[in-house]
Amino acid sequence: MNERDLEFNLYELFDSESLLTRTRYQDHDRHTFNGVINTAKAIAEKHFLPIRQKLDTHQPTFDGKKVQLIPELKVAIAAVNESGIGSATADYELGGMQLPPIIASAAGAYLSVGGGVGIGYNMLTTANANLLEVHASDALIEKWVKPMREGRFMGTMAMTEPGSGSGLGDLSTKATKTEEGNYRITGSKIFISGGDHDLSENIVHLVLARVQGAPKGVKGISLFVVPKYLVNDDGSIGEDNEVALAGLFHKMGGRAQTSTALSFGEKNGSVGYLVGEENRGLQYMFHMMNEARIMVGTSGAVLAVAGYQYSVDYAKNRPQGRLPSCKDPLSPMVNIIEHADVKRMLLAQKSYAEGALSLVLYGTQLSDDSRTAKTQEQRQYAHTLLDFLTPIIKTWPSEYGPKANSLAIQVLGGHGYINEHPVEMFYRDNRLNPIHEGTTGMQSLDLLTRKVPMNNRQGYLATLDEIYKTIEQSKPYANLDEFSVQLATAVDTLKETTQSVLTAMSTKHIDLALANSVKYLALFGHVIIAWLWLKQGIVATKALAEQPHQEDKNFYQGKCQALQYFYRFELPKISLWAALLNSTDSSTYDMQVEWF
Amino acid sequence: MNERDLEFNLYELFDSESLLTRTRYQDHDRHTFNGVINTAKAIAEKHFLPIRQKLDTHQPTFDGKKVQLIPELKVAIAAVNESGIGSATADYELGGMQLPPIIASAAGAYLSVGGGVGIGYNMLTTANANLLEVHASDALIEKWVKPMREGRFMGTMAMTEPGSGSGLGDLSTKATKTEEGNYRITGSKIFISGGDHDLSENIVHLVLARVQGAPKGVKGISLFVVPKYLVNDDGSIGEDNEVALAGLFHKMGGRAQTSTALSFGEKNGSVGYLVGEENRGLQYMFHMMNEARIMVGTSGAVLAVAGYQYSVDYAKNRPQGRLPSCKDPLSPMVNIIEHADVKRMLLAQKSYAEGALSLVLYGTQLSDDSRTAKTQEQRQYAHTLLDFLTPIIKTWPSEYGPKANSLAIQVLGGHGYINEHPVEMFYRDNRLNPIHEGTTGMQSLDLLTRKVPMNNRQGYLATLDEIYKTIEQSKPYANLDEFSVQLATAVDTLKETTQSVLTAMSTKHIDLALANSVKYLALFGHVIIAWLWLKQGIVATKALAEQPHQEDKNFYQGKCQALQYFYRFELPKISLWAALLNSTDSSTYDMQVEWF
Repeated sequence: MNERDLEFNLYELFDSESLLTRTRYQDHDRHTFNGVINTAKAIAEKHFLPIRQKLDTHQPTFDGKKVQLIPELKVAIAAVNESGIGSATADYELGGMQLPPIIASAAGAYLSVGGGVGIGYNMLTTANANLLEVHASDALIEKWVKPMREGRFMGTMAMTEPGSGSGLGDLSTKATKTEEGNYRITGSKIFISGGDHDLSENIVHLVLARVQGAPKGVKGISLFVVPKYLVNDDGSIGEDNEVALAGLFHKMGGRAQTSTALSFGEKNGSVGYLVGEENRGLQYMFHMMNEARIMVGTSGAVLAVAGYQYSVDYAKNRPQGRLPSCKDPLSPMVNIIEHADVKRMLLAQKSYAEGALSLVLYGTQLSDDSRTAKTQEQRQYAHTLLDFLTPIIKTWPSEYGPKANSLAIQVLGGHGYINEHPVEMFYRDNRLNPIHEGTTGMQSLDLLTRKVPMNNRQGYLATLDEIYKTIEQSKPYANLDEFSVQLATAVDTLKETTQSVLTAMSTKHIDLALANSVKYLALFGHVIIAWLWLKQGIVATKALAEQPHQEDKNFYQGKCQALQYFYRFELPKISLWAALLNSTDSSTYDMQVEWF
Repeated sequence: MNERDLEFNLYELFDSESLLTRTRYQDHDRHTFNGVINTAKAIAEKHFLPIRQKLDTHQPTFDGKKVQLIPELKVAIAAVNESGIGSATADYELGGMQLPPIIASAAGAYLSVGGGVGIGYNMLTTANANLLEVHASDALIEKWVKPMREGRFMGTMAMTEPGSGSGLGDLSTKATKTEEGNYRITGSKIFISGGDHDLSENIVHLVLARVQGAPKGVKGISLFVVPKYLVNDDGSIGEDNEVALAGLFHKMGGRAQTSTALSFGEKNGSVGYLVGEENRGLQYMFHMMNEARIMVGTSGAVLAVAGYQYSVDYAKNRPQGRLPSCKDPLSPMVNIIEHADVKRMLLAQKSYAEGALSLVLYGTQLSDDSRTAKTQEQRQYAHTLLDFLTPIIKTWPSEYGPKANSLAIQVLGGHGYINEHPVEMFYRDNRLNPIHEGTTGMQSLDLLTRKVPMNNRQGYLATLDEIYKTIEQSKPYANLDEFSVQLATAVDTLKETTQSVLTAMSTKHIDLALANSVKYLALFGHVIIAWLWLKQGIVATKALAEQPHQEDKNFYQGKCQALQYFYRFELPKISLWAALLNSTDSSTYDMQVEWF
């Protein structure tokens, strides 16, 4: 991670210190914020970084009975649990530190980079516990969330089934009500991250299943707590609950985290505890999924930052070749960072990685604001923005993170392709992000069919307002003129395109009107990232005017140059996507199955 | 591989049957052409496909003494050797089959897809032997090439050194002349593919080294045959020649082929046999490198085709979700190929993969024409075109192949990310192609600084002529109007941009003028692929007019739709690249090292 850039985001771009005036955070100060970030950094450096490669090359194995993970991971995860970072944002009463999510996210970034997805076990546990705290009964919270907050239990989310990946309405895991008022769960789930391991005393699966007699489709899905082991009334671990590991998947990346096929209740049914009410499971799960989507975007962004930083360091120290202007082939070689094309690959990475990072931190802050901002109006406004932007927060970093990682490989050349350096691992790890928690295609449909029209385009219009505010704020700075004019034009393009797609949706065949929805998300995503770069440019321009010391001056000039890169090399792409959308291009829609 | 598409390329697009009128190929007919292709297909299916995944998951290991490969590879490679396909294009006298390279390439495509890079051992051997046949003495050919053609020896090319990757002028391996007239070689090489293994009796390394006292830089490099074992006069294997395996690299993909660090002559120096004359080694090696560059492009293309075919089959058989127009959530799921966005991802792959395939086959045919076309004028013209196009033939498939493979993963979703399916392997394997045999950045500089200006832009102008011919040929077909108009405009853009870049090169700082050269290659590449798609469209349109049977009709309609996709979704991108080049955008050039 780039410490200076995190500091820039937290304290210059998003003013995290202002959070200290909120009651929830009143015990904190910038010192405690930095304390937790530094603790995370120390744990990452001490426990995760030394085993990062080993986690990647020693995939978890399954001997038919137990999952084998390298023993060092358990030690590293214990260190995270002891530090309390796993529950950094939770209430004091539940064993948490009541830290703002944006600070927890910055701390988590170090752990993610250091540990690859090793830290994923903790992150999923946190997300699981967060969901239960909102939707489960006190009894369930006492029994399952407390041990998760203490780090004794870990959590998963078990949604996907072999016969229905993204189509949750088609899932078929069954729940049968018992006389004691609990349920017996039977069925199969796949791709369950952290679905089995020996890192904790117990595993708390959140399982989507269909109660017998429930309506078909998405309206008949309920959510259950299904532990690996039952827990006795005194809190001790009880019987095995028939959650069997059917197999491990071998993933291209993210190998530290088991991806499992689980089979529930093959004999008598696994005991399941209903969360909330029957048939509302998907709603509850969506609560977790929105959080999970920000997490996925964060992973995309953080891996991009990691690859960028690594390749910058490499390029600064690797001599190779000479500049075209050099007429003497016997002169000393230059470091490759001097080559314009290497600069291009680094600047592109910077513009993707730091643009994505500011987007996910903005999303994290909105999520916090929607719960802890001072007025109901502010909370509602933040909620509106976040709800609208979630598909973009999930998708843009997921799509551009792997592109950044590919450039990091290219900067290193042959050395980037071998596991002596971690950039090829970042590339593999990051490739999952456009897939899980809703593919890019699904996010695009969500954006166009739900998020844009929702509440008379409230979220859409609020987002445009925010962009216009930034354009207005940039006016005093002449060096930003070029960019604010370009952004205003881009917003015009976005508005026209939105109108034309919505018109097509109501006048043309809906499948045709939505055929290029991925390009709509691409367009909107680029406008959002351009907006965040302009925001960063304003902060940097102001700071430069105050004659900072040389190191800071370099940092701010780098920001301005990455801003320029994004506006010159990236933002113009929206005109191509707009053209396809405005003409309701039918090339893909017209393609017939038998022509392939 | 898609058999129908190969047939289309060979017999409809490039008219390979016309090669039969050339003396060299007079013993062949379409029957023998297809015979060798079918043999390759049979070997791929019998020997390579069953071990493809095992080759990927069982990387070669090094116990300090010997490299361990899975034993099945030796069997598979023996089958290739027995079939004679390894020397398909070589002269009869040298044990070859005198087949046209385009036919050998089609045969090789099956082996590449079936065996991943397992077949790379043979391909490198062929390239090595081809070079020696042109540049080495008869004695060297007798001693080293014959056993390679027989499959008893294998070959490598040993160029890269730890201290100089792409900068060959800086290499430091030494050659000292001995009294017997041979040389002793000492030095270290890295990233040598197939540098050690137990697949053959001996390994023939082609080593670039600097004879003591030679000029510095690229003009003082000589080429040597340095075998793993010396060979006695009776042809039996002799002494160990001090070529020590210093270690194996662990690559992200292409794992069947060892990538080695070799150390030459640590005691007395390895015996080396000079190829041709001293100090002309780089010239000879370039002969091989041009071939190797077509091979790399071919690998990019063929892996893209493989991923495309696999994801089409998957999408046709995987039910998931419903179309937006479906109002009944309880209706049966559709196969995912029905979703417009899945069609988009498949069409994009088709346009990349089949566009790239036709480019590399065109390049292969030019290479053949430059040697076997009937008149000297024709041979010269083919040579001019090939020489000019090589950076594009190498780069475009290398850059767009991995993009296609990424889309194949996305089509499969979570299933694409695990090794149950081969698409994630294709993605990893293909990522090497933009790196080896000259990175994309280096190819771009080669194109702009050498290939475009060369001989009064002869190659450049010949290429434009070819494009104009196709535009002219498309005129009778109304359905192609849209595309030929667009292509003519694209060529105008290319011409303006070329002029403006050349002007900048002579009037502005050369490092600035070349800063965006990668975008120039991208632009030219897209025009070339658009041209080849129009060529394909003409053939398909003609064929459709002849009322083919339904299966062929589908095939040709698929071609037309992929053509349309490329012109609507891809070709417009050139306007953005042209804008950057025409304005000599300085964003990357201006970036300072300390700002990163």
